[in-house]
Amino acid sequence: MAKPKKTPRPKAETPKGFRDYFGTEVTERADMLGKIAQVYHRYGFEALESSAVETVEALGKFLPDVDRPNEGVFAWQESDDDGNGDWLALRYDLTAPLARVYAQHQNDLPKPYRRYAMGPVWRNEKPGPGRFRQFYQCDADTVGAPSVAADAEICAMLSDTLEVVGIPRGDYLVRVNNRKVLNGVLETMGLTDDAQRDDVLRTIDKFDKVGESGVRELLGKGRLDASGAYIDGVGLSDDQAAPVLAFLTSGGKDAAETLSNLRAAIGRSAVGAEGVDELETIATLLDAQGYADDRILIDPSVVRGLGYYTGPVFEAELTFEIFDEKGRKRQFGSVSGGGRYDDLVKRFTGQSVPATGVSIGVDRLLAALREKGRVGGQVTGPVVVTVMDRDRMADYQTMVAELRNAGIRSEVYLGNPKNFGNQLKYADKRNSPVAIIEGGEEKERGVIQIKDLILGAKIAENATLEEWKERPSQFEVPRSELVAKVREILDSQS
Amino acid sequence: MAKPKKTPRPKAETPKGFRDYFGTEVTERADMLGKIAQVYHRYGFEALESSAVETVEALGKFLPDVDRPNEGVFAWQESDDDGNGDWLALRYDLTAPLARVYAQHQNDLPKPYRRYAMGPVWRNEKPGPGRFRQFYQCDADTVGAPSVAADAEICAMLSDTLEVVGIPRGDYLVRVNNRKVLNGVLETMGLTDDAQRDDVLRTIDKFDKVGESGVRELLGKGRLDASGAYIDGVGLSDDQAAPVLAFLTSGGKDAAETLSNLRAAIGRSAVGAEGVDELETIATLLDAQGYADDRILIDPSVVRGLGYYTGPVFEAELTFEIFDEKGRKRQFGSVSGGGRYDDLVKRFTGQSVPATGVSIGVDRLLAALREKGRVGGQVTGPVVVTVMDRDRMADYQTMVAELRNAGIRSEVYLGNPKNFGNQLKYADKRNSPVAIIEGGEEKERGVIQIKDLILGAKIAENATLEEWKERPSQFEVPRSELVAKVREILDSQS
Repeated sequence: MAKPKKTPRPKAETPKGFRDYFGTEVTERADMLGKIAQVYHRYGFEALESSAVETVEALGKFLPDVDRPNEGVFAWQESDDDGNGDWLALRYDLTAPLARVYAQHQNDLPKPYRRYAMGPVWRNEKPGPGRFRQFYQCDADTVGAPSVAADAEICAMLSDTLEVVGIPRGDYLVRVNNRKVLNGVLETMGLTDDAQRDDVLRTIDKFDKVGESGVRELLGKGRLDASGAYIDGVGLSDDQAAPVLAFLTSGGKDAAETLSNLRAAIGRSAVGAEGVDELETIATLLDAQGYADDRILIDPSVVRGLGYYTGPVFEAELTFEIFDEKGRKRQFGSVSGGGRYDDLVKRFTGQSVPATGVSIGVDRLLAALREKGRVGGQVTGPVVVTVMDRDRMADYQTMVAELRNAGIRSEVYLGNPKNFGNQLKYADKRNSPVAIIEGGEEKERGVIQIKDLILGAKIAENATLEEWKERPSQFEVPRSELVAKVREILDSQS
Repeated sequence: MAKPKKTPRPKAETPKGFRDYFGTEVTERADMLGKIAQVYHRYGFEALESSAVETVEALGKFLPDVDRPNEGVFAWQESDDDGNGDWLALRYDLTAPLARVYAQHQNDLPKPYRRYAMGPVWRNEKPGPGRFRQFYQCDADTVGAPSVAADAEICAMLSDTLEVVGIPRGDYLVRVNNRKVLNGVLETMGLTDDAQRDDVLRTIDKFDKVGESGVRELLGKGRLDASGAYIDGVGLSDDQAAPVLAFLTSGGKDAAETLSNLRAAIGRSAVGAEGVDELETIATLLDAQGYADDRILIDPSVVRGLGYYTGPVFEAELTFEIFDEKGRKRQFGSVSGGGRYDDLVKRFTGQSVPATGVSIGVDRLLAALREKGRVGGQVTGPVVVTVMDRDRMADYQTMVAELRNAGIRSEVYLGNPKNFGNQLKYADKRNSPVAIIEGGEEKERGVIQIKDLILGAKIAENATLEEWKERPSQFEVPRSELVAKVREILDSQS
């Protein structure tokens, strides 16, 4: 008789492109988000937590980013009794749900509605190194405020936020541009063909990578890229391309000069003039609040998102240098972006509602804080009370209860206590600062042994025999002095 | 020519069974979870945030709860190039992912591994009133600790947690039972038929609802339930059923009496004796740490989850009374449950790993805190700086910048400023404590008007004309005193 087939064991793996976060990875992120929430709250923004699941209908199926029109969402069909339920999907950002929330609840929400949201979003993308399909976003948006005072406020808040989480002034720059200025430039160029406008927009988007001369070539005949492939150009003449290049390179020595250069670049375009006026207003408002251009800068070279947004566009860049994976120095780069977008709610209600907002790249900002030593580093684990006599577990539990009641993080070793070496190895794995030992003999004499594990490790590494004798890392103290002595050691370690 | 068909507008709705959380609903939950995390951390537990998405293979497709074997998960199939990718699903709890994480990372994790996790989980259930398909869980588990000292620790931690979040001692009780004792009872009864054992387990699960006499009927011939339907019984004789009822009602005046009753109920069963010994050990350990039975109680009438767990079982109940939706007094009831379960990791590795843990029903606990007045109540909004002159936005922005820099939550009105009444209505909707007014005339004289909106509302409701005159709710102060005066008013309001 054949044996019944065993079901194979399931693989213990996250799905491709997903990962787990452990210990300080979780708590450092939570701490940072808590600090950001405090700033947002002080600016009058209200928390919103929408559901992770939306109808595909409400979400719109694809990402709005022109760069990635084909990247998708995780979606599935509800099974109802007739076998044809709604299609549901995981949210891919926090903006699309905001549109749905605002349209659904507009009668109950204050107008304008300032809200912040933080949480995971999901993208059904091909995963790559350091590129995950679930990640955190942290957004603040103002819905229903047409004035660029709302945009200026977002920029000020972004600047405050970066400083509050630990990026010092001088190590970041919030840069501001305006899509309307670009529209003015295109108008002045006489570019009315939509396809050609899109080509120009896409080319401008490469300014960060290919620079002025690269954009010049790409607007004209084309360009040989680094891989040796020839990229066809938009086909503009040098004269035609000139206003675009003037726009991109119009940054001057101060806001006044930049604005003046921009006015030249837009010619007689009305929408262009409106855009430059808006930038001027933003600069004035921020200046009045004390945000000089070492913190927030009008900068026409900011092109990321210009295709998506409809008015002011902002980007926060960290300006300090790091070494990349190949050991080359480079600027840390962008950690946040945003801008003004129309038609957020129009899809649902038919009415245009102006909105502006910003999204912080939580994981990149955390990486930056680690880089700056503001988070991370060696983390101290709990005090470990070892188990010398398994029948006296109550004694050991009483010790940790005393320590915890004094606010000291601590735990009893709960594995098999037979091998004492394993207990010390465990304490080591936990980065414990202190181990407590109470064998039967100590119990009788009313004492305990306290091991300073940090000092012990240092001595083991460096000390001469003399020093070893002089600076014992293990002390015997009366049982009644447990809390006081542990606290003393913890204080000496910090 | 026919008009091109318009795409109908999407509906602005959450999917059925999902909801959004606004403002304090979000922040109160975050605060509570933060406090819980602090207690867990002090006990040596480490944070874990696993991905929301798991393979169906790793998750197991269905909930382990015997009550609800058919309730499902949200699942979908990955599309790979061949059109047959993995099935993925949203996690339905935080325990199944813990099993996967432990099996996947066991070489890197300390043993035992104490971890806590908090976050949303998803259930593909029929939604009902107050029953949502996305909700928060908050779990702590110890994996790899066979000793019931780990269970006692979880109970102590649960007791501490409830007090830290704001449930006073006396308003809650952690009750402890043990599946092994029940197994001993079943053994003593000679029940070896699996189907009949399951029937008895299911019947015991109804003890909370139908009480002793109900269970007696259901173990015997059957019972007419409240709706008039006849429920078939298990078919045991009175004698056969007696040990089960003795078990359920063996709670005595103290732990010693309860344990003695239990020893009688299990007869000569070895596994039963082991179970009673475990309860005794737990009682001893907790007593040594100062947890008397006004906080943690050995109580054989706890039956929830007895079918699922394999050793000690715990449940935290809030004992104060509330009025239900029909105006009847009832106990608030359970907010947390847990216990010891085997084979957590065995599905993956083939090796049995003992584990014990607890899950807090976050939303129920929040509801309890609201009931106790520990969270909620009137929430003060931001100070609102009104806009009298839209060309002087910089002045108003400067005011809020000053207020914020002093730590005072504040905002400029960013809607259309034309109608001043709308600005005050907005301040009202925001629950603003104070509004600031600076028209052109005030600007010239270097003063501002400060409106105490809380006092204003009180006066409008109650005051006589005399009082109205004596206690003005609007003050004129020099512009330079903005921050000082606002702070003074905020202090007087709190």
